[in-house]
Amino acid sequence: MRQREDKRGGKIRLKDISRRLGVSAVSVHRALSGKSGVSESLREKVIRTADEMGYIRNYAAASMKRGISRIGIVLPRDHGTLNLYFNYLWLGISDSAEELRYLNIETERLICEDEREQERILEKLLHSESGEYAGLITFFFTRNERIFDLVRRISGTGVSVLVIDDDPPELSDVSCIPSNETISSAVAADFVSLVAAENSSVLLSSGRLDSAVHERKRESFIAALRERRPDLREEIIEGYSRERESNVPLCENMAKRLREKGEVSAVYALTSHDNRAIVEAIEKSGRRRRIRLLGTDLNEESILLLRQGRMDAVIDQAAYQKGYRAFQLISDQIMKCLPGRRCSPQPIDIVMKANLDFHTPWRLREQEDIGGRMLRRE
Amino acid sequence: MRQREDKRGGKIRLKDISRRLGVSAVSVHRALSGKSGVSESLREKVIRTADEMGYIRNYAAASMKRGISRIGIVLPRDHGTLNLYFNYLWLGISDSAEELRYLNIETERLICEDEREQERILEKLLHSESGEYAGLITFFFTRNERIFDLVRRISGTGVSVLVIDDDPPELSDVSCIPSNETISSAVAADFVSLVAAENSSVLLSSGRLDSAVHERKRESFIAALRERRPDLREEIIEGYSRERESNVPLCENMAKRLREKGEVSAVYALTSHDNRAIVEAIEKSGRRRRIRLLGTDLNEESILLLRQGRMDAVIDQAAYQKGYRAFQLISDQIMKCLPGRRCSPQPIDIVMKANLDFHTPWRLREQEDIGGRMLRRE
Repeated sequence: MRQREDKRGGKIRLKDISRRLGVSAVSVHRALSGKSGVSESLREKVIRTADEMGYIRNYAAASMKRGISRIGIVLPRDHGTLNLYFNYLWLGISDSAEELRYLNIETERLICEDEREQERILEKLLHSESGEYAGLITFFFTRNERIFDLVRRISGTGVSVLVIDDDPPELSDVSCIPSNETISSAVAADFVSLVAAENSSVLLSSGRLDSAVHERKRESFIAALRERRPDLREEIIEGYSRERESNVPLCENMAKRLREKGEVSAVYALTSHDNRAIVEAIEKSGRRRRIRLLGTDLNEESILLLRQGRMDAVIDQAAYQKGYRAFQLISDQIMKCLPGRRCSPQPIDIVMKANLDFHTPWRLREQEDIGGRMLRRE
Repeated sequence: MRQREDKRGGKIRLKDISRRLGVSAVSVHRALSGKSGVSESLREKVIRTADEMGYIRNYAAASMKRGISRIGIVLPRDHGTLNLYFNYLWLGISDSAEELRYLNIETERLICEDEREQERILEKLLHSESGEYAGLITFFFTRNERIFDLVRRISGTGVSVLVIDDDPPELSDVSCIPSNETISSAVAADFVSLVAAENSSVLLSSGRLDSAVHERKRESFIAALRERRPDLREEIIEGYSRERESNVPLCENMAKRLREKGEVSAVYALTSHDNRAIVEAIEKSGRRRRIRLLGTDLNEESILLLRQGRMDAVIDQAAYQKGYRAFQLISDQIMKCLPGRRCSPQPIDIVMKANLDFHTPWRLREQEDIGGRMLRRE
C-alpha cells in the first residue's frame, strides 16, 4: 500500500554545482549573476545544471545589490476602458509588475500608435546610454524589416527583449509570447462549423483592411471553415473603426446583408471592436433566434452581452494573461541572466455563459455591476 | 511619456515585520515557522503582513531544519493508462511533487476503491502517531457524514487537509479544490443548446446510477438545457461499467435508440468512460453527419477521437491541473503554516480540434503517436 515517491531533497549551494561541473565556485557565481569572466557556453551549462539541481537564488537580495532595472514597454496606448485587447495587455503587465515589485524592476510606458512612432521610440532606445534599459517588451504592427532590424540591434546591446507576437522573424535571443491570433480564428471556424445550419451563410466582419494580422485572421477562418464545412458560404462584411463607439458602417452593412435573401446561420466578430455592432445589426433584423453569434475577446462589454444572452459565445484571446506572463518572463530573464526563449502559449478558449466566471479577470469579477456603463449608454 | 510604476522595493527582514506590527522579532519568527508561543490571531496577522510586505522565506533552508513532511493521498487507484479522471489527478499530483522535491516533502499513496476502504484508511491516519503525517489529500465518494467526521477530526489534530471536491461540508481549516462537476455538465448544456437542431432529441449517457456525483451532473445538464432550449427532448441512455473496455451495454442501448424514430441531433457522454461507446454507437448508426458528439475529459483516447474527427468537442474537467494545484496548495500550507482555504477553480473548457494542443498535457504532447495503443486495439 505504501509507495514513497520522493527522494530526500535539500538546499543546493554554489559549491554543489561547481563540484558537479568540475569548475570553480567563482565561475559558477559569475555565470549565475551575469558577470563577465566566463564563456557563454559555460554560463548556459551552469544555468541549466543549477536549474536541474533545484538551485534557488535569493533574487530579492541580489536585486538590492544590482539596483533598479528598467523595462521599456513599447505598445499602443491603454485606452482605459476595459474593452480592448491592448488595455488588457497593459493590465496584465502592470499587475505582474506590482507583484514583482520586490525585484527592483521599474517599467516605463512608451506609447506608439503606429509603426512610425514605434520606429522613433526604438531608435531612441537603441542609442540610449548603456545600462539605461535592462529589458524591452514590444509587438509588431506588420512584418516590417526596419522594425525587425531595430529589435535585433537592441537585443544585440545586451537588453533582454520580449515580443508579444505570432511568428516573429529569426531574432536570436529575443523571447516571444505567441499571440495566436490565427489560431483564435481557427477555433472560431471549428465552433461555427458545429453550429451553422446546412447550406447556410456565415458572415464575418472584415477587421481593418490594412492590417496584416486581420488579413491572416480572415484567411485562417475561411480556410478552416471550408475544410470542415464545404457546404457553407462565408461572406466578409466590411466596416471597422478605431473608435469602437462609432463602428456604424459595420452595423449598417451587416443589417443590409441580413435584409437580403439567403439564410444566415452564424455571425463572427473578427475583433473586439465588432462585437457590439454585430449584436445590434442582428437584433434589428429580428432574426436573432436563428443566428448564432460569436464574438472576440472577453471584456467588460462582451461579458455583459454573454450574460444577457445577446451573444452566444466569445473566443477568448487571453490578452490579460499574455501581458502578465510577458512581464514575468522578461523579469525572470533579467534576474537569472537567461537567454531568450519562446514561452508556452496561452490557451485560446470558447467562453459561453456557463464557463464565463472562470475566464472573467478578477478585476471584473469583483464589480457587481459589470458593464453598468454599457447599460446606461443604451 | 514616462510613467514610473514601481516603487523601489528591497529585501524584507523579520525585523521590518516586527517593527510594522509592534511585536518582537521572536514572535514574528515563531508565527512564521508554525511554532507555539503566539496566539493564532497574531500568527494570522503576521503571515498576512509578511505576505503584503513581500517577505520571502528561504523554504528550502527551513525544510532542512524541519525534516521530512509526509502527505498521505487517499484516492482511488491510478489505473496507469491515461484515460480516466483519477489517473490524471495522480499524474498532476506526482508532477507537482517532483517539482517541489527540494521542500523535503514525501507523498504516500493510500488507495481506496470505495467508501469502506476510505473509512478504514482515514481511521488509521487519525490514530497514527502525532507528526507522522503533515498533510492529507482526499475526496468524497458521496455525502457521507462518517467520512466528513473523520476528515474533521484529522484536521483537528493539526494535519493540513485538502479535499478535491465540490461543495464540501463546513470543515473548518480544510482546503478545497472544487471539482466543478456540475458546472462541467452546465457547460455541456450551453454547447448542446447551440448545436442542436430545432425540436430534436439530445441523448446523454446515464453515468453510474448509484453515484451522487453523476446524478448531480445529469440534473444540472437537464436543468440548464431546458432553460436554454425548451424545444429539445433530452433522453438518458443507461449503461456504465467501471472497466471502460467492457462498456457494451451503453453502446448497445445507444445504438438501439438511434434505430428508433425521432431526430437525434446531439449526444453527450456524461463521463470519460462513455466517450468511446457513444462514438461507436453513432458510427454504427450511419448518422454521424447529422449528430454532434460531445465527450467528457481530455485524455489519450478522446484526444485521438477529436483528431480523427470522430468526436466534435470535449468538456475538459482539467483533472491534471486539479491534482497539480492540490499538491502545490497543501505544500504551501504546510511550509507557511497557513490555515485552510478554498482555491480558485480550474476552468472548465470546451476543447475542439483547433484548440486541442493548448489543453493536451505535455506528457501526451511529446508522444508523436498519441493513442497508438487505441488504434492498434481496433
